[in-house]
Amino acid sequence: MNKQYSRRNLDFMLKEVLQVAELTKFSYFQDYTPDMFDMVLDTTEEIADKILRNAYVSSDRNQPQLINGQVKVHSAVKDYVKAMGDAGMIAATFAYENGGQQLPTVVNAASEMIRGSANNAFVMFTGLTAGSANLIFSFGSDELKEKYAQRLVTGEWTGSMCLTEPQAGSSLSDVITTAFPQSDGTFKIKGQKVFISAGDHDIADNIIHLVLARIEGAPLGTKGISLFVVPKFRANADGTEFNVDNDVISTGIYHKMGQKATPAMHLTFGDKDNSVGYLVGEANKGLSYMFQMMNEARLGVGMGGTYIASAAYYASLEYAKERPQGRKLNNKNLEEEQTYIINHPDVKRMLLFQKAVVEGSLGLLLECYHWQDMIHGLGKASEEAKPYQLMLDLMTTVAKTYPAEMGIKAVNEGLQVFGGYGYTEDFPLEQMARDVRIMSIYEGTTGIHSLNLLGRGVTLNNGKAPQLLFNEIMKSIELANTFDELKPYAEKLEKELGRLQKVTMHLLSIAAKGDNEAFLADANLYMEFFGITSVAWIWLKQAIVAKQALITQNLEESESSFYESKIHTMKFFYHYELIKNYALATRLTDTTLLTVDSEKHIVFQ
Amino acid sequence: MNKQYSRRNLDFMLKEVLQVAELTKFSYFQDYTPDMFDMVLDTTEEIADKILRNAYVSSDRNQPQLINGQVKVHSAVKDYVKAMGDAGMIAATFAYENGGQQLPTVVNAASEMIRGSANNAFVMFTGLTAGSANLIFSFGSDELKEKYAQRLVTGEWTGSMCLTEPQAGSSLSDVITTAFPQSDGTFKIKGQKVFISAGDHDIADNIIHLVLARIEGAPLGTKGISLFVVPKFRANADGTEFNVDNDVISTGIYHKMGQKATPAMHLTFGDKDNSVGYLVGEANKGLSYMFQMMNEARLGVGMGGTYIASAAYYASLEYAKERPQGRKLNNKNLEEEQTYIINHPDVKRMLLFQKAVVEGSLGLLLECYHWQDMIHGLGKASEEAKPYQLMLDLMTTVAKTYPAEMGIKAVNEGLQVFGGYGYTEDFPLEQMARDVRIMSIYEGTTGIHSLNLLGRGVTLNNGKAPQLLFNEIMKSIELANTFDELKPYAEKLEKELGRLQKVTMHLLSIAAKGDNEAFLADANLYMEFFGITSVAWIWLKQAIVAKQALITQNLEESESSFYESKIHTMKFFYHYELIKNYALATRLTDTTLLTVDSEKHIVFQ
Repeated sequence: MNKQYSRRNLDFMLKEVLQVAELTKFSYFQDYTPDMFDMVLDTTEEIADKILRNAYVSSDRNQPQLINGQVKVHSAVKDYVKAMGDAGMIAATFAYENGGQQLPTVVNAASEMIRGSANNAFVMFTGLTAGSANLIFSFGSDELKEKYAQRLVTGEWTGSMCLTEPQAGSSLSDVITTAFPQSDGTFKIKGQKVFISAGDHDIADNIIHLVLARIEGAPLGTKGISLFVVPKFRANADGTEFNVDNDVISTGIYHKMGQKATPAMHLTFGDKDNSVGYLVGEANKGLSYMFQMMNEARLGVGMGGTYIASAAYYASLEYAKERPQGRKLNNKNLEEEQTYIINHPDVKRMLLFQKAVVEGSLGLLLECYHWQDMIHGLGKASEEAKPYQLMLDLMTTVAKTYPAEMGIKAVNEGLQVFGGYGYTEDFPLEQMARDVRIMSIYEGTTGIHSLNLLGRGVTLNNGKAPQLLFNEIMKSIELANTFDELKPYAEKLEKELGRLQKVTMHLLSIAAKGDNEAFLADANLYMEFFGITSVAWIWLKQAIVAKQALITQNLEESESSFYESKIHTMKFFYHYELIKNYALATRLTDTTLLTVDSEKHIVFQ
Repeated sequence: MNKQYSRRNLDFMLKEVLQVAELTKFSYFQDYTPDMFDMVLDTTEEIADKILRNAYVSSDRNQPQLINGQVKVHSAVKDYVKAMGDAGMIAATFAYENGGQQLPTVVNAASEMIRGSANNAFVMFTGLTAGSANLIFSFGSDELKEKYAQRLVTGEWTGSMCLTEPQAGSSLSDVITTAFPQSDGTFKIKGQKVFISAGDHDIADNIIHLVLARIEGAPLGTKGISLFVVPKFRANADGTEFNVDNDVISTGIYHKMGQKATPAMHLTFGDKDNSVGYLVGEANKGLSYMFQMMNEARLGVGMGGTYIASAAYYASLEYAKERPQGRKLNNKNLEEEQTYIINHPDVKRMLLFQKAVVEGSLGLLLECYHWQDMIHGLGKASEEAKPYQLMLDLMTTVAKTYPAEMGIKAVNEGLQVFGGYGYTEDFPLEQMARDVRIMSIYEGTTGIHSLNLLGRGVTLNNGKAPQLLFNEIMKSIELANTFDELKPYAEKLEKELGRLQKVTMHLLSIAAKGDNEAFLADANLYMEFFGITSVAWIWLKQAIVAKQALITQNLEESESSFYESKIHTMKFFYHYELIKNYALATRLTDTTLLTVDSEKHIVFQ
């Protein structure tokens, strides 16, 4: 199997750009030495190589089946979850007291990059299991922690998140699954949940569903939502075994375009009035708890766009280097052999676009994970951690959306590099294109996140979060200005930052008039603008580190070309992608409303 | 089944914008009255309704199989080809003497819009059959016409075009299939062809392959390529029956991402030295002949992007009108019922984008077909027909590429409107997304067509063709300037036309220096620029006609809202799409080369 990610790039990001060794100075991470981070990635590569890659195609062709109420998944899923559990990697980032290893999340994300590029669908199982466990550890009772979370951490059981209902997709306010209080303090759960990833399977003895439901009589909207642990099997009377069917029925399985190896389930809770749920934390606070898992999952979806795009990039790069076709545009001599397609400018453009998206998206995501680690290191409650928390909250939505949307485009370009072959099952690109397509829908569509960013993220606390982010960006601009080669790009970014601020002010002036429809109508374009500008910053940061290495070190050619390639790709991003901001800004400051009904309804014919 | 195309829009395009009734003044079309065009579309709708729609999903789930060297396709393919043959619609545009009905190609394209939106994969069978027949009628001997073409016209047999070889995808210069001359004037064909659509099936007694091959000893490159008729079964000794196996072997069948109902074959000719081919026209002129069929097929691929996007648009429009979710941004009262998603600005934006792409692409394609009809009407050899031929030659490549590339994007937005449901097999969007993805690859990738447009189309005859096109655009701008509501858009288009000319001059100045690599490096972006500007013109034309109708006619509300919707969508195109030109022009006039190797090779890591 060809290369699907670049270890050299992961090392560059972790060691040179983010300098993760610095994290070990915090007491939270003090048990680590930098070479232990390398070992995590080495172990990951082994799991990817032995289990994940081999099952990528076969688990797509043989998708999960729902037979007699029970889902069967590809047998390698079990091997994968077991290997991850055995290596202590499902919940590696958790605190020691919760069965974790206090691994920096940025290193964990690098591990996910390796696993996801090998088999993106399998990674869902461990991601959801860790997220469920973390939710219980954060907000659940000691009993819930002991009974459920401890067995998720090891991979003995797996978890799922149950939010979406048939009548309430993006609108969680309208969740109607109901929890009826019982005299023993438990609840009877009744309702339908749809699109529940890994919601049923045959790889573990139990599945722990984290379910949003409304306690009978609770207030309308998000303020009346509570969170419950609802296991597939609950404990028997003496609590010794979990073998009582908890009335969670696999009503249906969705046949999906891609990511087929992860079953997406339609689950029915309490069809026989016998589904017991256990309240997590306080009543009516469920959605705020769930946001923790959702935010983790959102970065995970951004990773999904990135690692599938990475696998697609390396597949098309390999193909472009080996596939002869046509001749150079300056040399049409038919006597000569055909040239490799990588030598055609248009193919180079497609490859550079992919590289720019993959490494830019990864950089943005690792930046977020690094902020998360700074929060862990400094202590969540500390004053010093606050700026990181604010930036993380702001950027989670961008770090989910940019890699998802651009990952789809990048994989599409990868397929195009293959020409007709890319459209066939003989190469992995068509599967990757099907797999990656979900990323702009999972965990909140691009539309929802865009409303979030503009309607909430940039305005909260008087715009404190974007101000902090812009300060960070200005630091990079100032540093880049000290290098002649980077100066023009620093200037471009500064200009775009100014443009972004101007556009934001314009939109906020509409919001101030109270017209939310007009204010948010093009939130999607604002997200695109924000994403491009943020990734331009990430590329400048990478170029600075590359430039410093080229100047200060005596490098072998393979190493200097790595850094030169970084600078080249940064330039590509600025010359081909950043320029799109102008059109976005034009539209965002254009006051002609075309998607908002005013006097009359827009007619579609 | 929901609406998949708009008959009202087809009538608008044919009758009001292009005024096809005028064509009946030409002697070539004199047997038609306008209501006969309506009847063609009515008959098409019957075929679509009875055969095509019902088989759309099932022919995807049960894809063609290669069993014992013979391909079996979905049984409804046979019904479809028979119905088309019986209705005389396979070759309806052909001259009477060739078994056709001299139907204007623009009406035929409208028929294809109806069929293709119902079942895009089936349409390939009749399209390839008509193209093969037309090639023989145009360049073949009387014997070939009688023996083969006449039986293609009726749908008794079907045709295929065999260009691509394993070592020569986009590079036809490198075709190596060989034709060995025999003493009886025939040739023995030997070689491999790949991705041959409808290259084998079980719906007809014979398949007539139109094969590009090199006569033994022919010159290198495209100047040594000849065209052959190679039937699956050739005639027996006395010529009474076609029952002699002609050594065309189905070596393999490609499993594709989409358009699964059309088998894509790997064919081996002459494995037993027994594949007889019949030369079409003169030796070594094969590629120029084939260009006729390729150009027809290119417009057909543009239609493919358009009709799949049309079906996706109407599916998502229907869904958006029926799916309640969330509340209006200016009214978050939870006591109220959820609103339909069509009321959210972001969903409206996605729907308007789809509508703008579908109706803009269709307009561009019908413009090209109308030029084709003007050529037929005026007579191909006449002086008056020349401008139309020049514009058609220039724009075929744009009318293939814009609808293909933008059709992919539009279907993608349609899927997004459905959210998670769009990703499942419960709705047709995921299939449409898989189907449409091939359009930017079929009949020359976007990269190849972009080289064609910039490297050849705009420069031929001292740029005569773009000059003619610009004159046409200026006529529309002048007319639009007479309406207050349209004037601002006419001005925008005039500005963009000036920008396009400036960019073109800049690029030609690089070409003048002889550096083809630098000249053509961003041909792909030039194509995008050219396409957006062309479709902006098409939208202005439609808006002018709509505005005239609104001013001069006393309309019922349903009719006035049709026209208002046209003007609204034109505005949407200008405010959201045309603005992208600025970034494209910026890059196209930016002299920093990033995809061309100069001193050193760009390193990808």
